[in-house]
Amino acid sequence: MTAISLHDCRSRDAADPLRPLRDLFALPPGVIYLDGNSLGPLPRATAARVARAVEQEWGQGLIRSWNDAGWFEMPGRVGDRIAAWIGAGAGEVVATDTTSINLYKVLSAALQIAAQDAPGRRVVLSERSNFPTDLYIAQALCRQQGCTLRLVEAQELPAALDGEVAVLMLTHVNYRSGAMHDMAALTRAAHEAGALAVWDLAHSAGAVPVHLHDAQADFAIGCGYKYFNGGPGAPAFVWVHPRHAERFWQPLAGWWGHDAPFAFTPEYVPAPGIGRYLCGTQPVLAMVALACGLDTLEASLPHGGMRALRAKSLALTDLFIALVEQRCGDAGLRLVTPRDHAQRGSQVCLSYQGPHARHCVSSLPPEGAVPALGQPGDGHAEGAYAMVQALIARGVVGDYRAPDILRFGFTPLYLGFEDVWKAVEQLGQVLDSGEWRRPEFGRRQAVT
Amino acid sequence: MTAISLHDCRSRDAADPLRPLRDLFALPPGVIYLDGNSLGPLPRATAARVARAVEQEWGQGLIRSWNDAGWFEMPGRVGDRIAAWIGAGAGEVVATDTTSINLYKVLSAALQIAAQDAPGRRVVLSERSNFPTDLYIAQALCRQQGCTLRLVEAQELPAALDGEVAVLMLTHVNYRSGAMHDMAALTRAAHEAGALAVWDLAHSAGAVPVHLHDAQADFAIGCGYKYFNGGPGAPAFVWVHPRHAERFWQPLAGWWGHDAPFAFTPEYVPAPGIGRYLCGTQPVLAMVALACGLDTLEASLPHGGMRALRAKSLALTDLFIALVEQRCGDAGLRLVTPRDHAQRGSQVCLSYQGPHARHCVSSLPPEGAVPALGQPGDGHAEGAYAMVQALIARGVVGDYRAPDILRFGFTPLYLGFEDVWKAVEQLGQVLDSGEWRRPEFGRRQAVT
Repeated sequence: MTAISLHDCRSRDAADPLRPLRDLFALPPGVIYLDGNSLGPLPRATAARVARAVEQEWGQGLIRSWNDAGWFEMPGRVGDRIAAWIGAGAGEVVATDTTSINLYKVLSAALQIAAQDAPGRRVVLSERSNFPTDLYIAQALCRQQGCTLRLVEAQELPAALDGEVAVLMLTHVNYRSGAMHDMAALTRAAHEAGALAVWDLAHSAGAVPVHLHDAQADFAIGCGYKYFNGGPGAPAFVWVHPRHAERFWQPLAGWWGHDAPFAFTPEYVPAPGIGRYLCGTQPVLAMVALACGLDTLEASLPHGGMRALRAKSLALTDLFIALVEQRCGDAGLRLVTPRDHAQRGSQVCLSYQGPHARHCVSSLPPEGAVPALGQPGDGHAEGAYAMVQALIARGVVGDYRAPDILRFGFTPLYLGFEDVWKAVEQLGQVLDSGEWRRPEFGRRQAVT
Repeated sequence: MTAISLHDCRSRDAADPLRPLRDLFALPPGVIYLDGNSLGPLPRATAARVARAVEQEWGQGLIRSWNDAGWFEMPGRVGDRIAAWIGAGAGEVVATDTTSINLYKVLSAALQIAAQDAPGRRVVLSERSNFPTDLYIAQALCRQQGCTLRLVEAQELPAALDGEVAVLMLTHVNYRSGAMHDMAALTRAAHEAGALAVWDLAHSAGAVPVHLHDAQADFAIGCGYKYFNGGPGAPAFVWVHPRHAERFWQPLAGWWGHDAPFAFTPEYVPAPGIGRYLCGTQPVLAMVALACGLDTLEASLPHGGMRALRAKSLALTDLFIALVEQRCGDAGLRLVTPRDHAQRGSQVCLSYQGPHARHCVSSLPPEGAVPALGQPGDGHAEGAYAMVQALIARGVVGDYRAPDILRFGFTPLYLGFEDVWKAVEQLGQVLDSGEWRRPEFGRRQAVT
């Protein structure tokens, strides 16, 4: 196989119709940002829009801006725009609260529906390597409602869908491995087993094609601050299939979810449809920043939208894998993310196998590829952490995920092929030089 | 009694040591803002601080700002500053989520504790005229947990504290009447009856003295966007008495409330103390604006802090009542807010009794002064609504609350005595001219 050259990468950038979209972002000079899956970067237009919300809408409009600036309608308006990226319909999504809180709402709703349609089923089934906050929320809800959270490995999911399972709760793209589930197949399996399917789209909304209606999914939630570029702590979102929307109260039944919030009546009457998923007053400044983030995705529509973004995302992650093999193939790294496009999100994760492991980057083994949470399998967690820190010091920002994962996110809106080349070259230099062993790259608290 | 003159009001402003604090706010010219109890106005320093969070911390610092800019610590740091205004200790408050969501957390916790300490008690007792979202949250939680929400009038509360009551849930200052409960006395009555006391401080935190520890309160929540001037949809806050803090899981058990959120372990282990009341990622832009709002309150500390603010607040509301009597005494308005300082928040509410009522503004009758929610008692709700609209058109921003309330909030940080004079003069002109009957002041959706 011919080696890939920097020239090849530059040629691909020159031919990339999405290339001009990077100018929508205010990326710091000298930084290659491979962490948009944790916090999307700042769109250039956001600062002025937020300033307008602060100085004009709040400062001058004051309380009147709830009507005059449309603040009150924002969760639905932003939700409609999100719907377009996840295969949902207008009026089916609201932007609100946090991912964890929205999961509580939908999981509670799913358990209520299951209690009506399939009484006796009291198990929530999920994947052991799911993002922890999803597991925590499910644990708390199960504790509250006397249900059981059953955790299995990904490949054990179909067999675990037995007659006790009320709800299958999964994250579409795994935060640590980058592996993507087949949403349609698993939803079908859940339905055939008599269970409902709840999907967390935190690492897939805006990153990969999502077709909630086509997959016949029941509930979904997701994040505003990753691939939607909505800013730190941007509002999350929640979707409910219309067939379920009016079958229950969600438990966080605040006034924004009331049918007539300004009638100030003492009796709760849930709003029709997705409106009942709102609870309290939403953070306006965060919401306008999220709307600016969606602008950046929508700018891709003339170039093909998600189809084009997905094609470039796969090209970027393919290139990264190939270049890591070419440049760092004997450095003791292992590919954790699937090579199969159908199973890959928009990130590539490597685990560090230790200084004496000399095998090449290898494809994902058939099972058990993701190290168990909280159990550094090989004792080289410190190495993975330090390598990420050394890369950050060189301007290549990825992140570390316990126990031993180097995680790199690839967002086609602002990353190019030359960026991938440079990132791998920096990784190679970090490994060649051994500089990651320097004390300043040692562990302190890691934060997303 | 000698009539109060504009000159008197100007003299009081000239002698007011808090007067310079109004320069901390970017109030629009020509506006007298009597709605800070709904949305506090913009502090001058907020725009630059939010811009720095957007452009520097997010734009340049990117993901690193969770550590380097202290984003991750903000809920606790801001919470400590809030604690100082509500009689709580450092480390006992977090700023997070919304008031409604925080109420769900504490009410759920209170019911858990009651189930341990006083099994069999299954009633949540509240006031019928409590802010509706509090009632809605309580209804949903009661529905979920098989409890009962019992609603009575304020004066019936002590008698209603029987052996079935698990939790007394009240809002300290009523949003519609401005009446303030005696927190210490009602908490004592609850405890003597074997119940816990949950306080909503939405209309009192930053507005009136609050002494949670002195009152031996059990739980409290409140709002960031009213008297804390934190901006539209600012994060709310939550406090738990340390004696209860570690006795339960709150149900919204997300990763930010985990003992070690970045260990990514699959088992939920609640953080010690108030930390377990966090759930998901917080809106950073909203949180930095809230911190700027707290700066404006803290600027009063050299002048006496809450003691001085409360004295001026009472002087402003006393003046407003006296001037309404002097200028509009025969216009068919009735005073809804108590004249007794010990029972008054930082707002004055009037109800419109109709064009044929010619009695003067009168003191609050001994009971039943607050019209029942959703039941315009006298058919003049449209008048109250239109009068508020006509006042807004004249630059005096108060608000309408169903069914027939004109509500005026008085924030001593930025309002002066001349402002009160001018506001009442405008009200008098609206009433004298009858201009509020013009079609453009007719009802459309009212929004807080």
